[in-house]
Amino acid sequence: MTAKPQQFASDNYAGICPEAWAATAAANDGSARAYGDDIWTQRAADAFRTLFETKCEVFFAFNGTAANSLALAALCQSYHSVICSSSAHVETDECGAPEFFSNGSKLLVAQTPDGKLNPEAIRALACGRSDIHFPKPRVVTITQPTETGQVYSIDEIRAISATCRELGLKLHMDGARFAHACARLGCTPADITWRAGVDVLCFGGTKNGMAAGEAIIFFDTSLATDFDYRCKQAGQLASKMRFLSAPWIGLLESGAWLGNARHANDCAARLATTIAGLPGVRLAFPVEANSVFLSAPEAVLDGLRERGWLFYTFIGGSARFMFAWDSDIAVVRALGQDIVELCAPAAGMPPAPQSSYG
Amino acid sequence: MTAKPQQFASDNYAGICPEAWAATAAANDGSARAYGDDIWTQRAADAFRTLFETKCEVFFAFNGTAANSLALAALCQSYHSVICSSSAHVETDECGAPEFFSNGSKLLVAQTPDGKLNPEAIRALACGRSDIHFPKPRVVTITQPTETGQVYSIDEIRAISATCRELGLKLHMDGARFAHACARLGCTPADITWRAGVDVLCFGGTKNGMAAGEAIIFFDTSLATDFDYRCKQAGQLASKMRFLSAPWIGLLESGAWLGNARHANDCAARLATTIAGLPGVRLAFPVEANSVFLSAPEAVLDGLRERGWLFYTFIGGSARFMFAWDSDIAVVRALGQDIVELCAPAAGMPPAPQSSYG
Amino acid sequence: MTAKPQQFASDNYAGICPEAWAATAAANDGSARAYGDDIWTQRAADAFRTLFETKCEVFFAFNGTAANSLALAALCQSYHSVICSSSAHVETDECGAPEFFSNGSKLLVAQTPDGKLNPEAIRALACGRSDIHFPKPRVVTITQPTETGQVYSIDEIRAISATCRELGLKLHMDGARFAHACARLGCTPADITWRAGVDVLCFGGTKNGMAAGEAIIFFDTSLATDFDYRCKQAGQLASKMRFLSAPWIGLLESGAWLGNARHANDCAARLATTIAGLPGVRLAFPVEANSVFLSAPEAVLDGLRERGWLFYTFIGGSARFMFAWDSDIAVVRALGQDIVELCAPAAGMPPAPQSSYG
Amino acid sequence: MTAKPQQFASDNYAGICPEAWAATAAANDGSARAYGDDIWTQRAADAFRTLFETKCEVFFAFNGTAANSLALAALCQSYHSVICSSSAHVETDECGAPEFFSNGSKLLVAQTPDGKLNPEAIRALACGRSDIHFPKPRVVTITQPTETGQVYSIDEIRAISATCRELGLKLHMDGARFAHACARLGCTPADITWRAGVDVLCFGGTKNGMAAGEAIIFFDTSLATDFDYRCKQAGQLASKMRFLSAPWIGLLESGAWLGNARHANDCAARLATTIAGLPGVRLAFPVEANSVFLSAPEAVLDGLRERGWLFYTFIGGSARFMFAWDSDIAVVRALGQDIVELCAPAAGMPPAPQSSYG
Repeated sequence: MTAKPQQFASDNYAGICPEAWAATAAANDGSARAYGDDIWTQRAADAFRTLFETKCEVFFAFNGTAANSLALAALCQSYHSVICSSSAHVETDECGAPEFFSNGSKLLVAQTPDGKLNPEAIRALACGRSDIHFPKPRVVTITQPTETGQVYSIDEIRAISATCRELGLKLHMDGARFAHACARLGCTPADITWRAGVDVLCFGGTKNGMAAGEAIIFFDTSLATDFDYRCKQAGQLASKMRFLSAPWIGLLESGAWLGNARHANDCAARLATTIAGLPGVRLAFPVEANSVFLSAPEAVLDGLRERGWLFYTFIGGSARFMFAWDSDIAVVRALGQDIVELCAPAAGMPPAPQSSYG
Repeated sequence: MTAKPQQFASDNYAGICPEAWAATAAANDGSARAYGDDIWTQRAADAFRTLFETKCEVFFAFNGTAANSLALAALCQSYHSVICSSSAHVETDECGAPEFFSNGSKLLVAQTPDGKLNPEAIRALACGRSDIHFPKPRVVTITQPTETGQVYSIDEIRAISATCRELGLKLHMDGARFAHACARLGCTPADITWRAGVDVLCFGGTKNGMAAGEAIIFFDTSLATDFDYRCKQAGQLASKMRFLSAPWIGLLESGAWLGNARHANDCAARLATTIAGLPGVRLAFPVEANSVFLSAPEAVLDGLRERGWLFYTFIGGSARFMFAWDSDIAVVRALGQDIVELCAPAAGMPPAPQSSYG
Repeated sequence: MTAKPQQFASDNYAGICPEAWAATAAANDGSARAYGDDIWTQRAADAFRTLFETKCEVFFAFNGTAANSLALAALCQSYHSVICSSSAHVETDECGAPEFFSNGSKLLVAQTPDGKLNPEAIRALACGRSDIHFPKPRVVTITQPTETGQVYSIDEIRAISATCRELGLKLHMDGARFAHACARLGCTPADITWRAGVDVLCFGGTKNGMAAGEAIIFFDTSLATDFDYRCKQAGQLASKMRFLSAPWIGLLESGAWLGNARHANDCAARLATTIAGLPGVRLAFPVEANSVFLSAPEAVLDGLRERGWLFYTFIGGSARFMFAWDSDIAVVRALGQDIVELCAPAAGMPPAPQSSYG
Repeated sequence: MTAKPQQFASDNYAGICPEAWAATAAANDGSARAYGDDIWTQRAADAFRTLFETKCEVFFAFNGTAANSLALAALCQSYHSVICSSSAHVETDECGAPEFFSNGSKLLVAQTPDGKLNPEAIRALACGRSDIHFPKPRVVTITQPTETGQVYSIDEIRAISATCRELGLKLHMDGARFAHACARLGCTPADITWRAGVDVLCFGGTKNGMAAGEAIIFFDTSLATDFDYRCKQAGQLASKMRFLSAPWIGLLESGAWLGNARHANDCAARLATTIAGLPGVRLAFPVEANSVFLSAPEAVLDGLRERGWLFYTFIGGSARFMFAWDSDIAVVRALGQDIVELCAPAAGMPPAPQSSYG
């Protein structure tokens, strides 16, 4: 089981899935025009249009930080502001990239009990100040699913977009794990994006089985004017674009984008089920996508570390386990089993028999 | 010969070379830590240190536009300026990226007969203004080889760096085709970089056989302080970094970085030899790397287009042919043959014998 | 008493004090060199050096937003962060200017009970994150006095600067009302700046009796390198600089800088004394500088509005009254008297006799 | 004649004219609301609307660098470009401010024989590149009068604006000395701005007799959306705005804006007449506004320096003399006389009679 215990620390620890790999290999046959003027890029963009059932504008960026920041910068000016959750990746983990790409747009941070934005929180921030001494709210960004793995329902997104329309705000969706939300909701991608009022989506490929890459999808195509120039200037135009676009063909045309997400979600659900009701242990957040945040006694967490499990701990001391397209179900079982054992009331009790790992 | 004629339009039209591909495949075995904290990234960085025979700081960016811009931004502030050649890629083909990443640093453009910077041109720009109404020169950037394929000799670089030291300027080298310069000069990478006074090098991987990727190498390591934060904020930190770094292992450890460049240079030299002395045709620039700029009558260029050759035309009407690691020598011969035929004084004349191509 | 009741809404409502006016008039005699190369600018800078008893570097900017933002930008890079109080002007009232001038530096906001930063709050923010996914703390900015009129003691500043030194942070002071802090503490300007560990001070002139203008004072002169270029590029270099610098001569050489502040502080103290102990009324913040934040029943505030008083209301519903160099002590008395009357238990009681205004 | 000889080095050497001074004094009576919500600012904006005979949007900035940069930033994005003359102030003397405020917009520089832009030069730059690797042209900026004192005729501006309309470019006018152009042409301000197709004008106050200040005037008011936020964030919103706006009232309502410019133009014309035909001396540029560029033997320039005259020398060695509202006609005569004497063929020759100066 060498190296296995680290595989749940992040879904960025996973490699390239077979479908993305095969598409890359296929694209590597001979010469192709540069900068996106190739058949692979055209085909990948069309695959998105098919998937979303609409004539959207599609751009490919190298990573999520850039995709989110460029999309937000396209929706506002430096003296505008962006409303987000206090746990949003753009606020907590992008090292000021949104502020950098927009040349200073301020993030207005909502504190909500569940880490999701909602109409009330948006309204409070959007209407709190209306003088020129404070950046004018212009955009709302929601993370679907959230950083802690909760999924906005279709109705929740509709309510948010209605508020945005009323207040003159654009709606951006950070979909670093967008596929996992679709897998959870069992809806079409269109249902939780343009049909629900989302203007721009960043659809994450990296956490979905690609080596790298994010698609920026403008449903309101008028917002995409000159966005190709913006990408180029910002160092996000790949010269050999086919290698950034072809993996999407592999994911989208095969359905792997959804299958990968379902598998990861299932792993999380399985672990959640295993540990439900264990003494001293609880889920820090509802498990709705591909992550499990485990609140447990420090002794339990230490025990896991001793057994070789690698994980990050977050505010409140919860341990995060994230699952990916390649998560080994046997290893998920082993992790669950270890937690069960470590939570057993008597320390001296013998562990459950190995055979249970099946 | 389907699709072949387009292959010399740009060295960005080439695919991934076998060594880069194999290293990527090897790195795709199981899980690995994210954001560069993995064995592949460490090994790639070490391979650069071995190659350059020094303890340099190495960072990996997605493309050359970002690499150059981030490096330049690290060397100056917004109110400083960067001295470059009028044909430098940073000036002509990066859509204002250097100005964007630096938040406004101005490029001061030197017009020189051969498109290379030299001490006199640098001095003229660096000493032309010394008042606060004009951005203060702080950096010199040279492209090795230049956009038109000329290579700076070791002595030329030393002379430039001596001028930089004297004037308090940092020296950056845009090495989008750095390997091709090494192949041409037959020197070590150290000889034309830190030993010759270069502070920072952007070493191009894309045009050397990778899918994407550029290494930013600080020889003056004090200039690299917090550069990792700069990359992260600018959307240039890959989460699955191993896929950006491992290809370098393939290139560097196998020697393919140099072999690929030699092959491309040889193709260019071969074409240059073939067309030398043809009536009405001349080389717009000396052929020292992997490109040939052909000045020819419009009828000749039209003839090439009719025969299916794809190429870009540049100022003065010259046709550019660029060769890559995968350029097919037979196709190079065919191109040369077509030019010979099209230049034949009488249309009905028989072409030169094939054997002359060697 | 026409127009008088509005004069306490803001200290920006006051005009130009006689000393600043006279110096401007004196400077308007004939020609003078532009861009600061004039005798007035030299003399004003020297006056600051005399006042601060040290060889500081002095720059003149048009307003506080620019002065603070330029100073902060000089202390950090775009991927760094600035620690400030949640009530700091840079956070609440500069429309994202610090983020704009720094090209994206994030403000890390401390929530403290009294709105002042302290070593613990700084340490918590500075040490909370140390990964590259979050901007690296580099600067602390304190507002002296705070936006709500509290003054940092010498010891408080020393404690903060000791923490900054320990953590590798630079210390900036927003002194939009710096003179009022000096007046309150009865100390020398040096005592609460460089002698207490402050690296850079923005000394406000506008709220101290000038038409416009702020001085940026580098006590650590190494931080001032090329700051003149920074000001120029940012649109903060006055061509007829004498008119931005000369008023400082009027303020500093005459002592009016301190006299003006003392008068404003006295007005605030007088009002605070008048309303102390009134039923239903309390001071929302300790009165230590030139402002009074009055928490009072809505009926009292409405009554004040009906009587013509203009004031801003803040979070929690408190009414702010700010005093300036020109605040008329009789009008201050009238305001106090009105509050007394409105707080009187019986509404029908006759007002106190006019003679009491004295 | 103490200190007089320096007065023609720059029109920034002049002080505040009586009309601006008087208006400032009037505005300094008592309290006034801050940030432009005062009667003086309203009146000044209205005076511009009256002057330009249209409902334009008016904003006040501290200086020309900021005004130009903010206006240009409002007309384009970072990945766009601005077409200007090679001698434009935005290119040569603002230390990269346009690039800074726009976060990277590139200036595309036209070399024209007379330093003026024209339709052909604009078209060449606007149509030279249309790929995403180069910033997309979006704005044209013309300086009226140019840095060397030439004035665009109404027809010239109309021709330029027609080209701009055709090519989808906005037209900005840098009017640092706009009044001098009006004085020269004898036309209304409307004739050479909105009636001729100008979208935005920066109308300079500093060189027209104010202490500081520039008005940014949007004739296409749709371009002014949120421009107040832009000014605020960029440190260009004066808190005591009345002192930035009231001087305009003094200039505009009295007609001094035009009278000052006429006087300065007359001084230049007078000097030009005096030196016409002198041996070895010629005007480097046609004298159409308030400057004279004198090409003269070095011995003559040295002689002027020895006699105490202060002036800047420019490319080609010409000496610039600039006249302002306060230029003393007797001193202009003295300067002319000195030039005449220094150009006299024999050193011992008597100077030309005073009466010839008219």
